[in-house]
Amino acid sequence: MQKSIHISTPAHNGLYDITRQVEAIVSESGVKTGMVNVYVQGATAGIMIQENWDESVQTDVITLLRKIIPPGVWEHDAQDNNGDAHLKAGIVGPQETIPIVNGKMGLSTWQNIFLCEFDGPRSNRKIMVTVIAN
Amino acid sequence: MQKSIHISTPAHNGLYDITRQVEAIVSESGVKTGMVNVYVQGATAGIMIQENWDESVQTDVITLLRKIIPPGVWEHDAQDNNGDAHLKAGIVGPQETIPIVNGKMGLSTWQNIFLCEFDGPRSNRKIMVTVIAN
Amino acid sequence: MQKSIHISTPAHNGLYDITRQVEAIVSESGVKTGMVNVYVQGATAGIMIQENWDESVQTDVITLLRKIIPPGVWEHDAQDNNGDAHLKAGIVGPQETIPIVNGKMGLSTWQNIFLCEFDGPRSNRKIMVTVIAN
Repeated sequence: MQKSIHISTPAHNGLYDITRQVEAIVSESGVKTGMVNVYVQGATAGIMIQENWDESVQTDVITLLRKIIPPGVWEHDAQDNNGDAHLKAGIVGPQETIPIVNGKMGLSTWQNIFLCEFDGPRSNRKIMVTVIAN
Repeated sequence: MQKSIHISTPAHNGLYDITRQVEAIVSESGVKTGMVNVYVQGATAGIMIQENWDESVQTDVITLLRKIIPPGVWEHDAQDNNGDAHLKAGIVGPQETIPIVNGKMGLSTWQNIFLCEFDGPRSNRKIMVTVIAN
Repeated sequence: MQKSIHISTPAHNGLYDITRQVEAIVSESGVKTGMVNVYVQGATAGIMIQENWDESVQTDVITLLRKIIPPGVWEHDAQDNNGDAHLKAGIVGPQETIPIVNGKMGLSTWQNIFLCEFDGPRSNRKIMVTVIAN
């Protein structure tokens, strides 16, 4: 099974929890053992597995990435003024592949799947979800 | 085939080579061509492919991550005092997917699979290993 | 289907676009829906999805990684003088797994697949490409 998730991202930089939507696709697929690949299109966003107990870690991710990849100092800024967004996306990466165990994703209690927006707001970020049985 | 690896991590920050355990599962699966996904549960650990000639690169990984992600300066520290561990885990990522070539992992001579512990010691880190044939 | 790509890397640090070669293997496989895993052997190179409108982002990636992972200050330098290359490879990671949608990779317009060389020049970097149908 392969389906896409579409979400809007109101923040310029922000993390958006998509765990529930991915889990629904895994459940619908009926696959009991396998893998699910979660892949975001666009070269200024990423996918990160992270805790979602409250918003503190999400805020810390944005703070860390701004510190090590500041805006406004990149060659690419001459084109689009979003060199930092491309670099953040490249370091975080566009995908994670997650095991399916007993029909559910093999996430632990504090692991959630986040779309990381680095160049928002965007009205329609598209994430491809591909389920494969083993 | 899907199996879990369980290891204890005596260090607060440390890399632990799990290549041999993953290779044993690939071998047991009988898959000749495909992929193996190696995924660590828990939001304060990661999986990294790295050299294991001696311990120097492992030490350097810990040094680098402490330099760019220092402890004690994150919002999440108000909850658990382990904000740095979550950020390191998010940047390194919880998984790698590795090709299976002629019944073995397609690692080169100097590529080994490491569990990266960022919030130890832990008595039982669980890594899911999922093998898929193509 | 599983095939390897071989490329030479004239730069010490450089990004090399391999999208066309990977797409050719996906096309040859005949798989319409699935995943393709792109994995580079060697512990001093990585795979990154990134924009290829011009060379600016590629240059910025090299600049960023040299800033946060400078050469010459690592324990491993006593062995091979390439500690920075190993650390860059570990952070970027050796692989990406990309969905196959309607017989083509599910990349967006500005997403290209790059081999990242961190310890060149090398005459023969080997990248394994593994296609799996779902």
